Amino acid sequence: MASLLIRGGTILTMNDGMAIVHGDVSVRDGLIATVGQSGHHDPHDTVIDASGALVLPGFVQTHVHLCQTLFRGFADDLALIDWLRLRVWPMEAAHTPASLRASTRLAAYELLATGTTTVLTMETVHDTDSVFETVAATGLRAIIGKCMMDADAQVPGRLLEKTRASIDESLALRQRWNGAANGRLRAAFAPRFAVSCSRELLEAVGELSTTHDTIVHTHASEQQAEIALVERHTGRRNLEYFADVGLTSSRLCVAHCVWVDDHEQALIAERDVKVLHCPSSNLKLGSGLAPIAELRARGVCVSLGSDGAACNNRLDMFEEMRLAAVLQAVRKGPGTLPAREAVWMATREGARALGLEAEIGSIEPGKRADLIVVDLNRPHLAPGPDPYSTLVYAARGTDVRATVVDGEVLVRDFRPVFLDPVGIAAEARSEARALVSRAGI
Amino acid sequence: MASLLIRGGTILTMNDGMAIVHGDVSVRDGLIATVGQSGHHDPHDTVIDASGALVLPGFVQTHVHLCQTLFRGFADDLALIDWLRLRVWPMEAAHTPASLRASTRLAAYELLATGTTTVLTMETVHDTDSVFETVAATGLRAIIGKCMMDADAQVPGRLLEKTRASIDESLALRQRWNGAANGRLRAAFAPRFAVSCSRELLEAVGELSTTHDTIVHTHASEQQAEIALVERHTGRRNLEYFADVGLTSSRLCVAHCVWVDDHEQALIAERDVKVLHCPSSNLKLGSGLAPIAELRARGVCVSLGSDGAACNNRLDMFEEMRLAAVLQAVRKGPGTLPAREAVWMATREGARALGLEAEIGSIEPGKRADLIVVDLNRPHLAPGPDPYSTLVYAARGTDVRATVVDGEVLVRDFRPVFLDPVGIAAEARSEARALVSRAGI
Repeated sequence: MASLLIRGGTILTMNDGMAIVHGDVSVRDGLIATVGQSGHHDPHDTVIDASGALVLPGFVQTHVHLCQTLFRGFADDLALIDWLRLRVWPMEAAHTPASLRASTRLAAYELLATGTTTVLTMETVHDTDSVFETVAATGLRAIIGKCMMDADAQVPGRLLEKTRASIDESLALRQRWNGAANGRLRAAFAPRFAVSCSRELLEAVGELSTTHDTIVHTHASEQQAEIALVERHTGRRNLEYFADVGLTSSRLCVAHCVWVDDHEQALIAERDVKVLHCPSSNLKLGSGLAPIAELRARGVCVSLGSDGAACNNRLDMFEEMRLAAVLQAVRKGPGTLPAREAVWMATREGARALGLEAEIGSIEPGKRADLIVVDLNRPHLAPGPDPYSTLVYAARGTDVRATVVDGEVLVRDFRPVFLDPVGIAAEARSEARALVSRAGI
Repeated sequence: MASLLIRGGTILTMNDGMAIVHGDVSVRDGLIATVGQSGHHDPHDTVIDASGALVLPGFVQTHVHLCQTLFRGFADDLALIDWLRLRVWPMEAAHTPASLRASTRLAAYELLATGTTTVLTMETVHDTDSVFETVAATGLRAIIGKCMMDADAQVPGRLLEKTRASIDESLALRQRWNGAANGRLRAAFAPRFAVSCSRELLEAVGELSTTHDTIVHTHASEQQAEIALVERHTGRRNLEYFADVGLTSSRLCVAHCVWVDDHEQALIAERDVKVLHCPSSNLKLGSGLAPIAELRARGVCVSLGSDGAACNNRLDMFEEMRLAAVLQAVRKGPGTLPAREAVWMATREGARALGLEAEIGSIEPGKRADLIVVDLNRPHLAPGPDPYSTLVYAARGTDVRATVVDGEVLVRDFRPVFLDPVGIAAEARSEARALVSRAGI
């Protein structure tokens, strides 16, 4: 790989001291070489102008479903359990390798264009090779897990797995893909949620997570109806049940945690469980306002995700940063989660949640070059005295001038370089039409 | 004025039946002539291509403060009363005609670029001629009121008016500007809120509103601390006090109403008081989640506004539509305020709130040609089976391909035609720097 110079920007390093420096970022062989020096005279293969712009680490979204991007607009106005049973599961069951490719490309375009460089994604039950292959080609960094579901009679037949088969397929995917694409791709175990998984499955995943040092990506405590189902089946609160089955470790990444009680919050903090906060999804599905201030006060690692286009319907981290900040303002008063904390959650906490803090999440020499350039010249960002405030409260995804992953320039002059928007949108429309028809919706 | 053809779009007419038709919109002399016919062969001076796009009425924002656009990023993380006393009032007191021009242009650029064609705006106490003049030149439609403040010892000296002088200046502005620019400009009375106005002032405004058939634009029941102040001073709940002083009529436009009790809600409905809902502002200032579902169930006219850049920090109606919908989903369950209702609030209810329903708010022959073209070709809007869902949940301000006010094309190919973004942003930065220095912040 080659060399890249990002010249003359205001660099939000997001290092431990949150240093802001002015100057250049020099990248060699995918790694950040120098930060904040100016007037580079040594040659670089590519130069990106960052004057009048912010340079910051690419966003790390820790909870998405690439496979649901094709469902955008087909699943509005439903609460969680109906949303799953009437829309999302039938549509996931109707996916093919081709529709998964279309959905993944559609997601990757929006994610890269709006500055997300890494995702933790839960895919559907089948054909996850198709997602790994497609992500590899887009340049995005991703930890991908095939969804595991071996319980709940309401799941469509095609999605209901045997316990052993679910585990075997997860392991086989891990075998094929973990570490692929220069380490950009990794595999996770992804049991969907307590309701759709047997105790046996969850216990096995807990053990495998330890022996393979692998992330477990799941959902919990999103809505009251879901919690009632878990309590009926297990007699326990959701997170307590996860502790019982041996899942609660620093490798457990749990989306939502909207309704975690005091005891569960303490458990999350004590076991270093990672909370994946999805504010747009929590509002649109009617889930609630998550106790993020309380969790952070306990030292819990809370990162951000847009969830899926079936319940958001955007995949834009700017939206999630802004909502994360203002929802805590309305819960606990302005200043509870200031703009710079929201940027921290979107970068450093994301990297920490995924066990990638040594590689990404800040702009420091030796880290992988995953970074973005955000244009500040436009009127809607003026006057903008504080860069964190500008990013969180005023900026939007379309202000991303450049996106770089692993040293490769994937967005330049506000446009993805390798992805064709017209073709991707047309493919998405045609594949969605066919998928919805197969799903009988 | 000339003729304009918007060709080949999907037209969300927002008429009483919410008809969606395909074809052209023909505009002559600023008025909509025909809707939905195709293959126009008669000549038009200007043709805009709307293929692959939605055509809908321009957004009507019923609560903004153009003068606060220059304060963007200078007033984060404060609750209402401190936000006013420590930031907004000192900065308003430091405004000059030149800084007001800069602030107004900055706002107009963002508003037009993101599809807002009409605003109801509360300006500051002085120099409101500067705002009228500047808005006239931008092409925006606006009802403008100078802020009236004749009470509260904590208001900076320059903003504290004598009661009679406040009324006289409001009447003089009305005399000079009401109906100007082919009717695009109108004047309103704008007493700030109960805390900063004397009873005598509010009573006089109530009478003038009747005799001059003029809108009263104010704030009420935004935060608990404000309501406590009102109760301490008047012994009454905020809206009850407005009724006592003779303000509660169909011409009263009240921003926020986050904390209106059952009796106040009934009063609002009975007197046809207009509620101006500002969801972003309500979150960021920590105000609360307004009871919009309950107010609408009583038949109250609820429209939308972005409030000011000092508490949002965007002026983008797409943001407010989305938040309005999802905040009611989290309060009362998904489906409480579906996407098409949010679009209705952003167009028809806005026009109704301002008494302009005969002129704007829908695409129907005979109405003024205030309309926008929203591009649907981009990946983040695919597949997008329902146009209302696409607009509210997935689209963003930068998807606005064209904005037309009074038959004049003000945004074309995603860019304001008559406003220079570089000059406007530079002017904003320099005027903001000087203003903040004058304000001593």
